Amino acid sequence: MTTEFTTDITGAVVDSLKGTADPRLRELLGALTRHLHDFVRETEPTTEEWERAIGFLTATGQKCTDTRQEFILLSDVLGVSMLVETLGGHRDPAATESTVLGPFHMTESPVRALGADIDLVGSGEPCVVSGRVLSRDGTPLPGAVLDVWQADAEGCYDVQQPDVQPPGNGRGLFTADTEGRFWFRTCVPSPYPIPTDGPVGDLLRATGRHPYRPAHIHFIATADGHTPVTTHIFVAGSDYLGSDAVFAVKKSLVHDFAETDDPSLAREFGIPNPFRHARFDLVLEPE
Amino acid sequence: MTTEFTTDITGAVVDSLKGTADPRLRELLGALTRHLHDFVRETEPTTEEWERAIGFLTATGQKCTDTRQEFILLSDVLGVSMLVETLGGHRDPAATESTVLGPFHMTESPVRALGADIDLVGSGEPCVVSGRVLSRDGTPLPGAVLDVWQADAEGCYDVQQPDVQPPGNGRGLFTADTEGRFWFRTCVPSPYPIPTDGPVGDLLRATGRHPYRPAHIHFIATADGHTPVTTHIFVAGSDYLGSDAVFAVKKSLVHDFAETDDPSLAREFGIPNPFRHARFDLVLEPE
Ligand SMILES: [Fe+2]
Ligand SMILES: [Fe+2]
Repeated sequence: MTTEFTTDITGAVVDSLKGTADPRLRELLGALTRHLHDFVRETEPTTEEWERAIGFLTATGQKCTDTRQEFILLSDVLGVSMLVETLGGHRDPAATESTVLGPFHMTESPVRALGADIDLVGSGEPCVVSGRVLSRDGTPLPGAVLDVWQADAEGCYDVQQPDVQPPGNGRGLFTADTEGRFWFRTCVPSPYPIPTDGPVGDLLRATGRHPYRPAHIHFIATADGHTPVTTHIFVAGSDYLGSDAVFAVKKSLVHDFAETDDPSLAREFGIPNPFRHARFDLVLEPE
Repeated sequence: MTTEFTTDITGAVVDSLKGTADPRLRELLGALTRHLHDFVRETEPTTEEWERAIGFLTATGQKCTDTRQEFILLSDVLGVSMLVETLGGHRDPAATESTVLGPFHMTESPVRALGADIDLVGSGEPCVVSGRVLSRDGTPLPGAVLDVWQADAEGCYDVQQPDVQPPGNGRGLFTADTEGRFWFRTCVPSPYPIPTDGPVGDLLRATGRHPYRPAHIHFIATADGHTPVTTHIFVAGSDYLGSDAVFAVKKSLVHDFAETDDPSLAREFGIPNPFRHARFDLVLEPE
């Protein structure tokens, strides 16, 4: 690394990385340096702007706790999370599309039996979510595991309201049955604002953006011999489907939560009529 | 902002910024989004790599305190600070060049009389720093203010060793005399490692880089009607002049700290012979 008297700062930094033991880390840091420097060269930030950026990043880190991840929020509202997820996902149109993890997958979901109600407080419209986990060719995947989490009918996750919601409210870890089927009860989720009491909220206000996400339920589906998928299902007709604060909506992930009063379905799921029913399959790609 | 069903995530994010009240903020965030997304598209980080980056940025923010600025360190070791400083500085070759502020300008320098010794503990080789503050055309600038700070002969700043160094050790705020002259006593600074007990230290280790900076004294020079300059003077012959961990060396900023035993100089500065003497002028650009 030779920086003495150089005016090529970018070249000097990239050159300084040549001793990096891990070649992938070297590639990532070299590219980061080039693109960051391109940004600086294009915009020529003043010292005051640079200081503001340093202060913003510092405050973002300091806002993080065990139950709050402000840097994931920042990545989300800048579309970076969605871009990483989209580029990293499979490209097979027959498999379920992925979307962002989001900042609320921070506690372990409680193991629950198929059919259990993840709405521990009865906060909203009763709902059944059901479907199958399938391989790409339609073969059911018995024993597939679904990690499920959602906000309550008021739009809050359990970790945001430790005094109001019991831990694990809105969360469940389900194992598909011998025919790859899953079903559980919950309430219909609501749109919710991402947390706005931190630096990311300041950013949204400064840019005139609303903080809302359309109603959704998160899933991570895993099955032996298949690539896991991190995704949501979105509630068809929800507000903000066209302006998700984190840019995570994909058309294939929007599903009807249709009202039903079919007596045989009610019997099958052990739920009184009427109820809302979302049904869809999760399709995984073989590894 | 329309993100529903879009595959152009970058366009959707840039479009979402159109309500930003401050046009410069809109420009900065739009450019940041484009360059960040370009970085992601080029490198296609995996979810694990993205999570590592989130964890690194979070730890960087959480390492910051009133006396530790890890994000400035990160900006420094990636050459971003130096690039901002270089692009934002004047382009007039006759004026003193700028360099990075660094992370240790975090307490107010004590006001001191010309000739005072900023080395409060007598830690190293006695030294006089003297010169003039001039306007670009050579006119002296009486009343120009110099904010000076440096590490001690062991390479530590006062804020790093609150139990060992008195506050203000190695710091002084001097006002040039009626002929624009300044002079003060100190010890010859040493090369020092930037702090390596945080995430930036991990980064340096992972990239096989040493953390050292060549020996230097920091200055911020201000004078009425002139653009302030943030700079260093580097000790000629110091180790690491060719591999400064923060890429901040510029040839014009390297000065001899020559040993002298001239009796009239010793008398003038009230210092016993022999001593080291750095002399240079600071030249400011009129606004
Ligand atoms: Fe969510
Ligand atoms: Fe320094």
